[in-house]
Amino acid sequence: MHVFPTLENIQVAHQRIQPFIHRTPIMKSTAINELAGCEIFFKCENFQKVGAFKARGAANAVAKLNEGQKRNGVATHSSGNHAAALARAASVAGIKSYIVMPSSAPQIKKKAVSSYGGEIIECEPNLLARETTLQQVVADTGAIFIPPYDYFDVIEGQATCALEMWEEGIPFDTIMAPVGGGGLLGGTALTSKYISPNTKVIGAEPKGADDAFRSFQARELIPMQSPNTIADGLLTSLGKLNFAIILEHVDDILTAGDVEIIEAMRLIYERMKIVVEPSCAVPLAALLKHKEQFQNQKVGIILSGGNVDLGKLPF
Amino acid sequence: MHVFPTLENIQVAHQRIQPFIHRTPIMKSTAINELAGCEIFFKCENFQKVGAFKARGAANAVAKLNEGQKRNGVATHSSGNHAAALARAASVAGIKSYIVMPSSAPQIKKKAVSSYGGEIIECEPNLLARETTLQQVVADTGAIFIPPYDYFDVIEGQATCALEMWEEGIPFDTIMAPVGGGGLLGGTALTSKYISPNTKVIGAEPKGADDAFRSFQARELIPMQSPNTIADGLLTSLGKLNFAIILEHVDDILTAGDVEIIEAMRLIYERMKIVVEPSCAVPLAALLKHKEQFQNQKVGIILSGGNVDLGKLPF
Repeated sequence: MHVFPTLENIQVAHQRIQPFIHRTPIMKSTAINELAGCEIFFKCENFQKVGAFKARGAANAVAKLNEGQKRNGVATHSSGNHAAALARAASVAGIKSYIVMPSSAPQIKKKAVSSYGGEIIECEPNLLARETTLQQVVADTGAIFIPPYDYFDVIEGQATCALEMWEEGIPFDTIMAPVGGGGLLGGTALTSKYISPNTKVIGAEPKGADDAFRSFQARELIPMQSPNTIADGLLTSLGKLNFAIILEHVDDILTAGDVEIIEAMRLIYERMKIVVEPSCAVPLAALLKHKEQFQNQKVGIILSGGNVDLGKLPF
Repeated sequence: MHVFPTLENIQVAHQRIQPFIHRTPIMKSTAINELAGCEIFFKCENFQKVGAFKARGAANAVAKLNEGQKRNGVATHSSGNHAAALARAASVAGIKSYIVMPSSAPQIKKKAVSSYGGEIIECEPNLLARETTLQQVVADTGAIFIPPYDYFDVIEGQATCALEMWEEGIPFDTIMAPVGGGGLLGGTALTSKYISPNTKVIGAEPKGADDAFRSFQARELIPMQSPNTIADGLLTSLGKLNFAIILEHVDDILTAGDVEIIEAMRLIYERMKIVVEPSCAVPLAALLKHKEQFQNQKVGIILSGGNVDLGKLPF
């Protein structure tokens, strides 16, 4: 039995990370609302520090370390945004960071880690390689491992995003977030169910990496074998703590295919004039695919990040 | 001797168009400020209705027509954003619009005009063809011609953008806007000099279409012969009324080459996570090229629009 972060924990985390993050705006698009048949409030975490919501969880986890824990720095493995987020959180705290990244990670995400002074250790693009490489780094350096999602301090930080959404006073019928490891979705579900138990919380996942969808249906954790999707931020399998939260607090998980994800992504660029990464477009893709479920609702969608190789846009 | 729109005219225009436009946000980027050595406030007209500041001028010009003038609709020629803006303003007012567009105009801009119910008449991509085609349309339909920039009602509308910037209470040392026909730069100069005579107003122009730069130096209007630049919104020559305002109220015009424009554009995408069209990146390109002039200043930059063919991004 886990003790999940409480609403008070999340509120305190929000105060704690305040100096290190942006309060991101909520944007709307008349054209997209007409297309969807509902009123969508996009929480723009693509404008967040390091270009993704991950700045929240990393900032919270680092800020909670004591001086002794900080001495040898922090380490993690990540396909990208958590990597940059932890490198930045460490840099702001004046400590070292070691980042294990798959060799396939987008160049822009590697560049971001380096720009924050993070030390990159490359590995093969699979979970086993990541984990063994990370163990070695931790053994060699004595750094503290800050997991990308399966970690309450990180979940607590990601939960502050929904807190800001609720502070706007909008009576959301539904809140949607993408799900990869489940840090954002788990945090969003905790905050939202504490504040508004009747609001539906829905995860959105690419069809090509649908372990959360299948795990949620089966009510047991089914790890992803060979994920294949353009949504490179959502390749990881669901974490254990995240799954526990999701089982208890998430109402549904919807999926969308890559063609639908690219279409939603293009819609966001064309109609909202903002830059998002493919993973970020998954909730809108899932909503449009299942739009009959959302008619006339007020829907909050977290746009998770904007770190994309501009030379490789899928349109 | 022309009588330019007064500050009161501009304030009344702002009230008049209020229901038809967005009050766009001002955004900042720590990374770009560090690169530039000054503090830049980006006024995001890429988030404006129809994706460009042109919504302001068109809305103002149409709203000022009397019922008799509205009867046969409105007409114009434009390479793009004024076209969509006028089609939308007409549609909102329940009247017809006829839009003469060069055959080379980006597909996305033609699509936008159609989506607002504007009737497109294509012509060769040169000023003479535009003007003769337009004359024919006006003769055939009895529509009222709303010029894209050389027209006080339009300039008055564009001037409301700077008005919103000044309402934020920021003591700008410099305000920059791109210059093509001069509607935005002229309007920005009027508003800014009325409110803060000591603030420098600087136009930014692509090197490949530098008629405003050369006209400003020569203090006489030198039309552009064969413009050649990626900044497709700034191909037109400076208007007469616009030039009169610019001579009196603009402090300088700076230019930037296409390589610099593309670099600035990429910086805006990568660092600010927003979509802008090439023309929109010209002021930042010019500022970065001449950055020694702006050290430690507070600089307002108008991001003019975000209508770009995403399949043809120059990176």
